[in-house]
Amino acid sequence: MKRTHDIMTDKKKTTIILFSGDYDKAMAAFIIANGAAAYDHEVTIFATFWGLSAFRKEHPVPVKKGLLERMFAKMMPRGADRMGLSRMNFAGMGPQMIKHVIQKHNAVPLPDLIELAKEQGVKLVACTMTMDLLGLRPEELLDGVEYAGVAAYLGDAENGNVNLFI
Amino acid sequence: MKRTHDIMTDKKKTTIILFSGDYDKAMAAFIIANGAAAYDHEVTIFATFWGLSAFRKEHPVPVKKGLLERMFAKMMPRGADRMGLSRMNFAGMGPQMIKHVIQKHNAVPLPDLIELAKEQGVKLVACTMTMDLLGLRPEELLDGVEYAGVAAYLGDAENGNVNLFI
Amino acid sequence: MKRTHDIMTDKKKTTIILFSGDYDKAMAAFIIANGAAAYDHEVTIFATFWGLSAFRKEHPVPVKKGLLERMFAKMMPRGADRMGLSRMNFAGMGPQMIKHVIQKHNAVPLPDLIELAKEQGVKLVACTMTMDLLGLRPEELLDGVEYAGVAAYLGDAENGNVNLFI
Repeated sequence: MKRTHDIMTDKKKTTIILFSGDYDKAMAAFIIANGAAAYDHEVTIFATFWGLSAFRKEHPVPVKKGLLERMFAKMMPRGADRMGLSRMNFAGMGPQMIKHVIQKHNAVPLPDLIELAKEQGVKLVACTMTMDLLGLRPEELLDGVEYAGVAAYLGDAENGNVNLFI
Repeated sequence: MKRTHDIMTDKKKTTIILFSGDYDKAMAAFIIANGAAAYDHEVTIFATFWGLSAFRKEHPVPVKKGLLERMFAKMMPRGADRMGLSRMNFAGMGPQMIKHVIQKHNAVPLPDLIELAKEQGVKLVACTMTMDLLGLRPEELLDGVEYAGVAAYLGDAENGNVNLFI
Repeated sequence: MKRTHDIMTDKKKTTIILFSGDYDKAMAAFIIANGAAAYDHEVTIFATFWGLSAFRKEHPVPVKKGLLERMFAKMMPRGADRMGLSRMNFAGMGPQMIKHVIQKHNAVPLPDLIELAKEQGVKLVACTMTMDLLGLRPEELLDGVEYAGVAAYLGDAENGNVNLFI
């Protein structure tokens, strides 16, 4: 008899580390993730360091923080829609240009790509070590996000087909 | 009898997403691609976002564009030789320094690395979604470039040995 | 009888290209590398371009260099502890903030992560092509670092489970 575990491992796996806090790089990550989910891959996006910005709630969440933690919290964009571009950011004008052409071409903006990923069962994981370092609390991140460390990442990635660091 | 398809899948596969528009990162991408091709891998470079700069023709190509598309076209370097460095760019002096040491050490500059890749059968693919967004037309890109989306990328990558996001 | 070679290839493999010269990205690379080594992977970090900064000795090493080589040597940080952040660098204040929170949370700073990697048998490889280009000599790099080119990288990566470009 085939065990559930064996059946599960028959599925292709895509595992993406989202390190970057840039709007365009996060877009690339979620477009690949959604594509892979549509092709029936098991998909995980493991957000670490600045990539956690994409998982932040848009509204401020009242939590107690130390001075450095408050500084990090201020400097990291609150949510996908506030992230900048990796180039041509032009003090925030670049993201507006990109969002304009996304709308014009009926493409999908980043916050909707994240919503879609959740609906398609893409596993969103926040790196607990970075959260500790930067003083981010679970209540500040999107609902549905899971919490894990590098061991869980390796468990997903070592049997994976597509492993990317973005 | 072994089918052609099976024989093909016996080859190792290297699939690189070139997201970056930096001269040094594109150099790394093409050095890996050429190395893998020399070791008889099936190699694909899938250029998306700013990575498309590496596939642009050097001379301007007259195509009709909207205002935003003209702005993007102006800001993105026209061809590999005009790309900047990811660090130490120093307003364009950095790339000259790198090109100087490349010549001094008989190393291969980026435009020649791209030529070599084409000669070795590396598949160069331009991401149609980004082309749409940025208003890039096929006639503006190098001859021999193919056009595809994320589904084609996943088809190459999911059976691959070396998958990188650069 | 099973040969040693076959037994070795039963081990999982993690191969990381460290291209970036940023403190935070190098931290991510070494955290993944150390995690994979703890899970009994064969791990290689192949440092190329600005990533070679992480392998430099902290004290200056007297070697003869040409003018451009001296300029590169000056501009590239000497050792892991002098590297900057990929964002929020704030003229060097960012790394101090990160190092402060690392200490506060009993996390491991980058130079110690590199030491730990060496102790765990992570193979540290410096890209000879980049060393040539930038005029870096083996005596300027950490003891225990190996020297190889793209062919050796591909040999490690093509049978690997987790391949990343950082």
